Amino acid sequence: MLIVQKYGGSSVGNPERIRNVARKIVDRKRLGNDLVIVVSAMGDTTDDLITMASQITDDPSEREMDMLLSTGEQISVALLAMAIHTLGEEAISFTGAQVGIMTDSIHTKAKIVKVRGAAKMRQELKKGKIVIVAGFQGIDKDENITTLGRGGSDTTAVAMAAVLKADECEIYTDVDGVYTTDPRIVTDARKLGVIAYDEMLEMASLGAKVMHSRSIEMAKKFGVVIHVRSSFKNVQGTLIQEEDAKMEDVIVRGVALNKDEAKITIARVPDRPGIAAKIFKMIAEGNVNIDMIIQNVSEKGYTDLSFTVLKDELKKALKVIGTIARDVGAAGVKHDENMAKVSVVGVGMRSHTGIAAAMFEALASKKINIDMISTSEIKVSCVINSRDAEKAVKAIHDKFKLGDKKVLKEKVGAAK
Amino acid sequence: MLIVQKYGGSSVGNPERIRNVARKIVDRKRLGNDLVIVVSAMGDTTDDLITMASQITDDPSEREMDMLLSTGEQISVALLAMAIHTLGEEAISFTGAQVGIMTDSIHTKAKIVKVRGAAKMRQELKKGKIVIVAGFQGIDKDENITTLGRGGSDTTAVAMAAVLKADECEIYTDVDGVYTTDPRIVTDARKLGVIAYDEMLEMASLGAKVMHSRSIEMAKKFGVVIHVRSSFKNVQGTLIQEEDAKMEDVIVRGVALNKDEAKITIARVPDRPGIAAKIFKMIAEGNVNIDMIIQNVSEKGYTDLSFTVLKDELKKALKVIGTIARDVGAAGVKHDENMAKVSVVGVGMRSHTGIAAAMFEALASKKINIDMISTSEIKVSCVINSRDAEKAVKAIHDKFKLGDKKVLKEKVGAAK
Repeated sequence: MLIVQKYGGSSVGNPERIRNVARKIVDRKRLGNDLVIVVSAMGDTTDDLITMASQITDDPSEREMDMLLSTGEQISVALLAMAIHTLGEEAISFTGAQVGIMTDSIHTKAKIVKVRGAAKMRQELKKGKIVIVAGFQGIDKDENITTLGRGGSDTTAVAMAAVLKADECEIYTDVDGVYTTDPRIVTDARKLGVIAYDEMLEMASLGAKVMHSRSIEMAKKFGVVIHVRSSFKNVQGTLIQEEDAKMEDVIVRGVALNKDEAKITIARVPDRPGIAAKIFKMIAEGNVNIDMIIQNVSEKGYTDLSFTVLKDELKKALKVIGTIARDVGAAGVKHDENMAKVSVVGVGMRSHTGIAAAMFEALASKKINIDMISTSEIKVSCVINSRDAEKAVKAIHDKFKLGDKKVLKEKVGAAK
Repeated sequence: MLIVQKYGGSSVGNPERIRNVARKIVDRKRLGNDLVIVVSAMGDTTDDLITMASQITDDPSEREMDMLLSTGEQISVALLAMAIHTLGEEAISFTGAQVGIMTDSIHTKAKIVKVRGAAKMRQELKKGKIVIVAGFQGIDKDENITTLGRGGSDTTAVAMAAVLKADECEIYTDVDGVYTTDPRIVTDARKLGVIAYDEMLEMASLGAKVMHSRSIEMAKKFGVVIHVRSSFKNVQGTLIQEEDAKMEDVIVRGVALNKDEAKITIARVPDRPGIAAKIFKMIAEGNVNIDMIIQNVSEKGYTDLSFTVLKDELKKALKVIGTIARDVGAAGVKHDENMAKVSVVGVGMRSHTGIAAAMFEALASKKINIDMISTSEIKVSCVINSRDAEKAVKAIHDKFKLGDKKVLKEKVGAAK
């Protein structure tokens, strides 16, 4: 079997952990498998590099940040290769550039457009070597080093699995799978055996930290089954895969929480045709990711436009949006950093009604005020004040009886 | 003018020093120059990376060491680019791979065979950008990352100056030039205004730490005039250039000392034709650099073969040579780690006699025993016990009156 494994930063956080990971890899290799390993930067390396940059400048060039941060993964692949050598197996490490991970040129959050190095990797596998690839990084057409943004190493792993048509894609992490909700908030949260790509996509974009949306999108596109599991415990994790009929028996798969939300309101935007289009085009050009959007008529001829952004993009967003607001003749820009978004997700919702109502009921029972609402086929999200976040998650998790084993009917058929 | 500058590890040892270097670079740029900057890894970075590797294995793969160590320079080029940006100038950093520094595949001491990125660098210079290149690294034809060994960043700088036909190549270091001998040993050691390539080559290969031989060889080959100067003091340093008639007035340019020598003797090698050739071929294949060689007849039909190696290559050398000794039926291998080599160097020696005799006299006057002797057109070297090293250097420096200004007649004509 050809297996792609990805180890996150905490799994390779120090030399001892690197040796442990090497041992796991070698054991798996000796069962007769071909292995491609994707590794993140060691524990605090990325933070240390960011600190160094911040001692030089408050506003580093994104190209140079990518140049800087990509060294983190390069260090860990080299050390992991050495650790595997000491166990008597052959291994060879590669940077993103060396296995031809081609991306666009959006530094700090580049997207993979092609992987050129499949033949090269196959050649090394054929020689019996374990192939180790630096996660999180690639190069653009001019050979500038790019990084893939949050969860980038997961995306690298899925891309490798897709291009090599791997039999398995295992994502090793510090949790042992995907849960109905964050177990630190709700003690009876349950580990899911399987979850559909679309559900995981919603969970990820809604704040579940396990996997990043981009890697799931890519897995869905190329039909890569992802196995999320623990680097520390040898137990079955959660399979992320194409949905099947059985999955619809479960109405709500999980409850997601994102506490890192901020709300921005552009007040008194003149209500002319095409003005919203103009505003959102400018926001997109400013490279700001916005999430929920709500438009209210504030008074005749004017409208208030609210939307949410990730808290750590707030500064950048306000800079861009301040300019836009002046441009379109709005009255001003307000923001609130203390927002949280709580969501329920499940492909089963498509064939059920009343999910939103049940969720609002759960929130009302705890006297939690809802600020914004957004729904899709398979999710309902509410933006609330972040001080109520945990209370809201608990109430909703209870309401849908997600801690109750009988409710979760799916079996872990594909699990090995 | 197009100027190549190289800053060593101590010059960019911390964020504050990086900012200082950036300031110097920007000042120089604003005088109307085009600048290509070559940078080493920050201060202790390389040592820290080596320590990490040593926590994983005693015997790291050289390919993976190169992968690991090359991150050091990548970090410093990114940070230096950021620091230049804060001063309002444009700068762009490149890895060795990105400017096409092609090397052979001898990991940890690769040789540059070609630089492909001249056009790319010129293009960036034309845009008004300061080009920053990671020293010490390149890639081989299969895109493996290689490193150039000791003094590798100097070699990178000279290669850049050669391929770009730069007007100047400045090597910034923590000393302010090349001295007649190590000023820490001899207090009246004098800074040289100029030194010929061949003299500097001998000085370097004999232990003067300022510049590494490979960079001088390359400078000589391409006629690059090197200006070795201090990163901390703004004073004229030493020019390394083609020798001219005037230089021959000075008989001895300097005294070099290498305390990191070890001597290996292969005892009772059967004295058959071709056996020395066989031994040295095997040593070369084992990638061991040997220096002085002496052969003595020990008894009829047998010979003792002695040579020196750098102390930190002794372990590797003994491994290779042990095998060879068994192969050729020698009696055994002995070694002595406490050796030093003291040398006098000067192109003027070609037209003078009696230099060796004067040197032996100086050593004899201090009762220092000479173990091995080697001479060339422009140098005389003696291997002695390392406990006598400093005493020997002082005696020789005095003997040739190198501390006396009147003896050093050359003027710093070319200096700016």
